[in-house]
Amino acid sequence: MSTQKPLILITNDDGDFAKGIAVLTELMTHLGEVVVVAPDGPRSAQSNALTVTHPIRFRMLEQREVLTRYSCSGTPTDCVKLALNEIVVDRKPDLLVSGINHGSNAAINVIYSGTMGAVLEGCENGIPSIGYSISSYDSDADFSQFAPHIVEIAAKVLQNGLPHGVCLNVNAPVGTIKGIKVARQCDGRWVKETEKKTDPHGRAYYWLTGEFENHEPEAVDTDEWALANGYVSVVPTKIDLTAHELVNEFQRLLE
Amino acid sequence: MSTQKPLILITNDDGDFAKGIAVLTELMTHLGEVVVVAPDGPRSAQSNALTVTHPIRFRMLEQREVLTRYSCSGTPTDCVKLALNEIVVDRKPDLLVSGINHGSNAAINVIYSGTMGAVLEGCENGIPSIGYSISSYDSDADFSQFAPHIVEIAAKVLQNGLPHGVCLNVNAPVGTIKGIKVARQCDGRWVKETEKKTDPHGRAYYWLTGEFENHEPEAVDTDEWALANGYVSVVPTKIDLTAHELVNEFQRLLE
Repeated sequence: MSTQKPLILITNDDGDFAKGIAVLTELMTHLGEVVVVAPDGPRSAQSNALTVTHPIRFRMLEQREVLTRYSCSGTPTDCVKLALNEIVVDRKPDLLVSGINHGSNAAINVIYSGTMGAVLEGCENGIPSIGYSISSYDSDADFSQFAPHIVEIAAKVLQNGLPHGVCLNVNAPVGTIKGIKVARQCDGRWVKETEKKTDPHGRAYYWLTGEFENHEPEAVDTDEWALANGYVSVVPTKIDLTAHELVNEFQRLLE
Repeated sequence: MSTQKPLILITNDDGDFAKGIAVLTELMTHLGEVVVVAPDGPRSAQSNALTVTHPIRFRMLEQREVLTRYSCSGTPTDCVKLALNEIVVDRKPDLLVSGINHGSNAAINVIYSGTMGAVLEGCENGIPSIGYSISSYDSDADFSQFAPHIVEIAAKVLQNGLPHGVCLNVNAPVGTIKGIKVARQCDGRWVKETEKKTDPHGRAYYWLTGEFENHEPEAVDTDEWALANGYVSVVPTKIDLTAHELVNEFQRLLE
């Protein structure tokens, strides 16, 4: 058995200066050796976007004891690819954690989230990967209630691993936390998503905005229910998007 | 019964000048009234990225008979959101098609693809949605073999709809096509993903690149197998990423 400390790779989508990643980094230094490779500015809602039209760069910010931090010019998914191909090349990370995101990534937000993009990328590369988010956009959000659950979940994943192709989407409510609920991704969508403005030259432009519409507010097994009722939600999340149950039916339909 | 022609929304990630979207648009004008809202330049590998740090704009390029075309400054997913909130507001599209992408979106590419990002966005909004891609990066790719299958699949989806939360990821090989295989997303990943260069000032920079590594080359039910064997692959694709089979087990593990 190795006595080597676990190697933990950290990234986020709010940028390397965000409070969320500072808190997550501090927590992870108690569990292992930590390498942070985070975007050099906000990359919210970057999903699994890759930078392909121009090159990307990274530079070391800090190196001390169990912590090394890098800043990267790319998206969260770029950060993971650069980390695995150029930075932690001698040893595969034992865990990837992303966040703590300032803002919920529950329900359909999983497909837009840069935080979860990085997590899907880690998962794709065979690394047990966890995304952490809190339901508050406050840049000074209070993570103290969430912190022990973050450590507990990371420690259990370090101990047990995760099944092939599965990662975790962990979201916390603000305020008192009652416990953890493993949940499914709530069905819902964003509505009223654009706000029209006019520039000084009379031309229209549009900001993306919106309200989340929960399509199953009565269901008690969703991540949205867990958050609304004071629980940390944990959604086991797959990188295989196939609707396996429909393959045979669709083959008959298309023949 | 309405005698109104179906309303078909088209977008892509290669930009509004690409041959693929021109071919797709021409094909769809035979099936209904067509509105194109496509990015004003290449947006490959933009996944479900949203533009949130600056506003977006669109402008009409062309309006004639059954076709109206708009150009949009945003990502493919932005295009769909702008279309649904600002352009086709009086009538929900009966079908969304995205592509034809110059380059395969089979296997794990589904999570990086801007083409498929737009399709997931259409699906999320309750519109039957299909992404079409061809396994060639040639900007003058030959779509003639693929074309009848594109029309056939779109016509069947217009007739039958798609189940809630399910869209289609359709990929074609180059050359002779033997038929259609409904398949599952192949397990694999990209490797050797960065190429290091040095700028004239001695600083390193990195291009994203890579090779796809198929983790199950023997399996005959995957999209990669279908493409390698001359078939159009159709993967029924879900926007619910939950690993439902693991929810109860993980609840016990985390308690």
